[in-house]
Amino acid sequence: MPLFTEQASSWRDLRVFPSFAPPLPRLTTPFNPPEDPIERYEVLIAGAGPAGLMLQLLLSRYGLTDKSLLCIDSKPGTLKSGQADGIQPRTLEVFKTLGISDEIETEACQMWEFAFWNDADDPAKGIARRCVVPEVIPPSRFSYEATIHQGRVERIMESDLSRYSARGVMRNAELVSVRIDDEDAQFPVLAEVKVNGVMRVIRTKYLVGADGAHSVVRKSVGLNLEGQSLDHIWGVVDVVVDTDFPDIRRRCAIHSPAGSVMVIPRERISTGEYITRLYVQVPGVVESETSADADLGKDAKGRRGSVTLEGILKQASDVFQPYYIRPRREDAVDWWAAYQIGQRVCPEFIVKDSSGLGRVFIVGDACHTHSPKAGQGMNVSMMDSYNLAWKLAYRINGLTPSSSEDGAPNPLLDTYHTERHANAQQLIDFDRKFSTGFSDKVGTAESKSGLSHSEFVDLFSSGCGFTSGCGVEYVGNLAVDKSSVVRSHPVAGESEFLWGILQPGRRLLNIKMKRFADGAHRDIHDDLPSTGRFRILSLLSTDLLDPNGVSATALNATASLVRQFPASILEQIIIHPRMRGEVTWENIPACVKEQAEMSFYSGCELDNAYRVYGVDAARGAVVVIRPDGYVGMVGELGDVARVDAFLGRIICPTP
Amino acid sequence: MPLFTEQASSWRDLRVFPSFAPPLPRLTTPFNPPEDPIERYEVLIAGAGPAGLMLQLLLSRYGLTDKSLLCIDSKPGTLKSGQADGIQPRTLEVFKTLGISDEIETEACQMWEFAFWNDADDPAKGIARRCVVPEVIPPSRFSYEATIHQGRVERIMESDLSRYSARGVMRNAELVSVRIDDEDAQFPVLAEVKVNGVMRVIRTKYLVGADGAHSVVRKSVGLNLEGQSLDHIWGVVDVVVDTDFPDIRRRCAIHSPAGSVMVIPRERISTGEYITRLYVQVPGVVESETSADADLGKDAKGRRGSVTLEGILKQASDVFQPYYIRPRREDAVDWWAAYQIGQRVCPEFIVKDSSGLGRVFIVGDACHTHSPKAGQGMNVSMMDSYNLAWKLAYRINGLTPSSSEDGAPNPLLDTYHTERHANAQQLIDFDRKFSTGFSDKVGTAESKSGLSHSEFVDLFSSGCGFTSGCGVEYVGNLAVDKSSVVRSHPVAGESEFLWGILQPGRRLLNIKMKRFADGAHRDIHDDLPSTGRFRILSLLSTDLLDPNGVSATALNATASLVRQFPASILEQIIIHPRMRGEVTWENIPACVKEQAEMSFYSGCELDNAYRVYGVDAARGAVVVIRPDGYVGMVGELGDVARVDAFLGRIICPTP
Repeated sequence: MPLFTEQASSWRDLRVFPSFAPPLPRLTTPFNPPEDPIERYEVLIAGAGPAGLMLQLLLSRYGLTDKSLLCIDSKPGTLKSGQADGIQPRTLEVFKTLGISDEIETEACQMWEFAFWNDADDPAKGIARRCVVPEVIPPSRFSYEATIHQGRVERIMESDLSRYSARGVMRNAELVSVRIDDEDAQFPVLAEVKVNGVMRVIRTKYLVGADGAHSVVRKSVGLNLEGQSLDHIWGVVDVVVDTDFPDIRRRCAIHSPAGSVMVIPRERISTGEYITRLYVQVPGVVESETSADADLGKDAKGRRGSVTLEGILKQASDVFQPYYIRPRREDAVDWWAAYQIGQRVCPEFIVKDSSGLGRVFIVGDACHTHSPKAGQGMNVSMMDSYNLAWKLAYRINGLTPSSSEDGAPNPLLDTYHTERHANAQQLIDFDRKFSTGFSDKVGTAESKSGLSHSEFVDLFSSGCGFTSGCGVEYVGNLAVDKSSVVRSHPVAGESEFLWGILQPGRRLLNIKMKRFADGAHRDIHDDLPSTGRFRILSLLSTDLLDPNGVSATALNATASLVRQFPASILEQIIIHPRMRGEVTWENIPACVKEQAEMSFYSGCELDNAYRVYGVDAARGAVVVIRPDGYVGMVGELGDVARVDAFLGRIICPTP
Repeated sequence: MPLFTEQASSWRDLRVFPSFAPPLPRLTTPFNPPEDPIERYEVLIAGAGPAGLMLQLLLSRYGLTDKSLLCIDSKPGTLKSGQADGIQPRTLEVFKTLGISDEIETEACQMWEFAFWNDADDPAKGIARRCVVPEVIPPSRFSYEATIHQGRVERIMESDLSRYSARGVMRNAELVSVRIDDEDAQFPVLAEVKVNGVMRVIRTKYLVGADGAHSVVRKSVGLNLEGQSLDHIWGVVDVVVDTDFPDIRRRCAIHSPAGSVMVIPRERISTGEYITRLYVQVPGVVESETSADADLGKDAKGRRGSVTLEGILKQASDVFQPYYIRPRREDAVDWWAAYQIGQRVCPEFIVKDSSGLGRVFIVGDACHTHSPKAGQGMNVSMMDSYNLAWKLAYRINGLTPSSSEDGAPNPLLDTYHTERHANAQQLIDFDRKFSTGFSDKVGTAESKSGLSHSEFVDLFSSGCGFTSGCGVEYVGNLAVDKSSVVRSHPVAGESEFLWGILQPGRRLLNIKMKRFADGAHRDIHDDLPSTGRFRILSLLSTDLLDPNGVSATALNATASLVRQFPASILEQIIIHPRMRGEVTWENIPACVKEQAEMSFYSGCELDNAYRVYGVDAARGAVVVIRPDGYVGMVGELGDVARVDAFLGRIICPTP
């Protein structure tokens, strides 16, 4: 359209262009390190693998600037030696709330199905398919597990990071040692870092060790991984295969008389071909090891050293009989490795200063290692950071009740260990069972575990809540109030929570709703972007149109509550059930339009929110959702006092 | 998992990292301009608005390097004066096939509903809502129109472009003149360009004018926009409003005694607020103009010059009675403008050299202008480029049968005008009706058009196929064979095509299928990425398991056909219907696994492909899909000769 008059405001571009996450409010004074020769930060992150990058990305989005936040990594460029490749549904949900899931959705391999193969009834015939089950059983926004090279995942996070941090990751910077030194009470963590070969001393308020299984941070503060290795050696290879095995594009567990193999289909590569990852059990056993931080390779070194690519491929070929499998060409192998299964966890994830305030944290492989069979590594590591980031940012920005007292213990920070250590322990217990089952001659007389084939499939299926990341449940603590659960019916078993029944400590299941203001169909997870905000989800009751009813009273009380806390820290999501009368802006409390015009939904026209979440529409409920998407508490609609008390323990009211 | 042996191949990173679109094969020699002082390119694009950027992005992805391709723009930075804001479902589908839809999906306003408001029955009461209809009626991968600032859309394309082109857009480069000069037969287009104030002469094989309504390219080659202006002036304003109008977040057509307004809800901005765009009819009329390239503002200058922001807001306020509407604050207005509705189209989109080969092309506003009411501008402009890009790349890369003869006419290139000019004419005809209806006192005795309210709603609904971009149908031509349509039933009306019935000249409707190899649920559009390839879609018949049946024979013949054309230019998508026996890799022709392992689907487990596309499962069909997603032909399954003939007119066989 040809215009003949046009006028743009000077502020237009700033307002329409950005799409940056809004930083958290900061009640403490902006960070200005003292002007002396000592280099100081609020947070130093050691290690830029998935866990470290996720933490840096979140803290940067929450508003920590390059002046306040430093992430170092000893390698010269983006990590290329990573071997993880699985992204679980829950991790995809989180990536989606960060707006960075698209490339993975489009380019990764989507694993929808898991095939189980065993000895054929006639042993001469080799292996036969027993069953195919869905890879992801519990409901999730994503019905598949994605597989893609870890380097791609890191690049995606780093690209997004570049929008928030000019420095990005400082490379060629090796952490040498860490200690807590109370001399400088504000910056009690002292780190020695070798940058391009030159030693620098850095002081920081908080330090996070995301530096992997051989963590310098962990060793420096005197912590150890505790646990044991199992007695099996496995080889793993990424390869473009030539095969007539019909399920090569499904995840497979193959148990044959010749041994076990797990097939992980992988993404398409630049040649247009698709990679396959094979986990191949190496015949024979080595001794189990029980050790603290055992340096693998001391014992049984001979056996391990004898693992070769040719041996792995030969073994795979034997297991796949009567099918053939081989590299498609000479240059078809991208990567291979060998490992001994082990499960280890660090007993403490936090080291405190003399006043009891957590100062050093460890995340990811630095605090737990396990076998790759359940596809957990990269996911659990990033979720450690996802759990820690908002707690750390709240402390630093002075948003927690005890933030104001410098050096006082901070109960919110402590919940990082409470929640993630218990989770790591569960992971390791599951992994031990699952990887034992894998290495075992399942369903045969020789089985050590005694697992039958169907018990092994059951183990996978029941573990799926856990392995998908969707079934994680945090224990009760300051940020998870299990005492006040409101439900429409008593819950018979765990699996009901997987299917969406509200439970403090579990993530809120995604549902689709119709928005009142514009009729848009919207995922509730899109109202939970990873911006560090708490959300109060009100599931209104059927009396909404009664100005003196429970719903109207609750809405007004919640609106007042929101105003008592720092601006923007509490967001509202409001859902109404099917009702007799027509809902209009005029016949509901004005505060809905004022505070939640674009997050007010019908909970009955698309998914039935009340049925999914297990809430009686006649009674309603109020739910507090934490910045990481987990349910903090579920209270009676109108019991704003309880919400206030819960939030008051975590967030300080506006000063 | 701690590894004790690890080995990565040197080629690993190159293979797993990229996610670049594979370039088209090039049969002509690589481009190396002669070494003399004259600057030469294969393609010069003038203008980096949505049309120019889309073209540059596509040609770069197809493999044209910075040496061969130059895009210039007179402005110093990313366009900030753009006023378009609507992205239609079809455009979103295209963005999705380019892997760049995510930001728009997440950050744009999604318009799902269109509300119609008219005088209330009691005139004293002002306006009343008459009905709400879906914004997008025909089926599409996206059920909404997105609205977002044009600058964001350009930034998204430019970010992606930066992965393929180091230079990107050359800014501060103003096109001064263009002419065809056969002296240099290989580079007959001569352009004068002022770069940072310095004049440069550039020769190019092809030049594309994407330089807007006042196109220098169009004027240089002596072409004019032809058409007329209507007699209404409209104001448009982007503003954060304060209002009690209940449908402010829906698209609205408001006809009140005081005049007409269209409401376009817009995206959230960095303040956390949402923009609204208001189109407001300015009272009174000016004379219509019929002119070739009329410089608006010559006539009726007084009336137009008197349009002010205050006037627009006052008028809106009158129309919205009994509701109030005003800017939320003093700085709530981002942009405003005034325009007179006009519809103009250029009679030729291509200028040829003396041998009859198209050398200069115009796209976007340079060849058609219209009112913004139907939200077409940015979309139709980008779709011009989407239509032209692959044809131009095929010519340049020597993939068309006549490419080899330098200077010979190229029938494929000519279809750009055939297809897009007819489309522009349709657009303009629709726009005239629709915008007249908007400016008119619909449903009253004063109505000039005589449209009743319900006729106006019908006009919108029936136009929706067109305005959504999903109902575009190209006329029969070299690349659209309308003579050979295979269908399960006679088609009663146009709307059946909208709902998916295969029709040459229309885009293939997206469906969901279950993949045979891995059980993945997949959108067929994900098998149509914008990589410039043709796809042969075989809808097999129920005799697939018969090795001598039509399906098996067709598959083998198609496999041979694919091998006759340049490598990778033809991709296969194969769908099978519900069948009596079990489909396995062993009981179908081996060529399926060889050529289409990852694009072989069940067409009955999710959407029913046969019902949607109108194909009899007992008979099957073969469909050629062009690189732009449009159906080229629909033939009998097994009639590979016809496919060969059709493709042979467009693509040359392997030399």
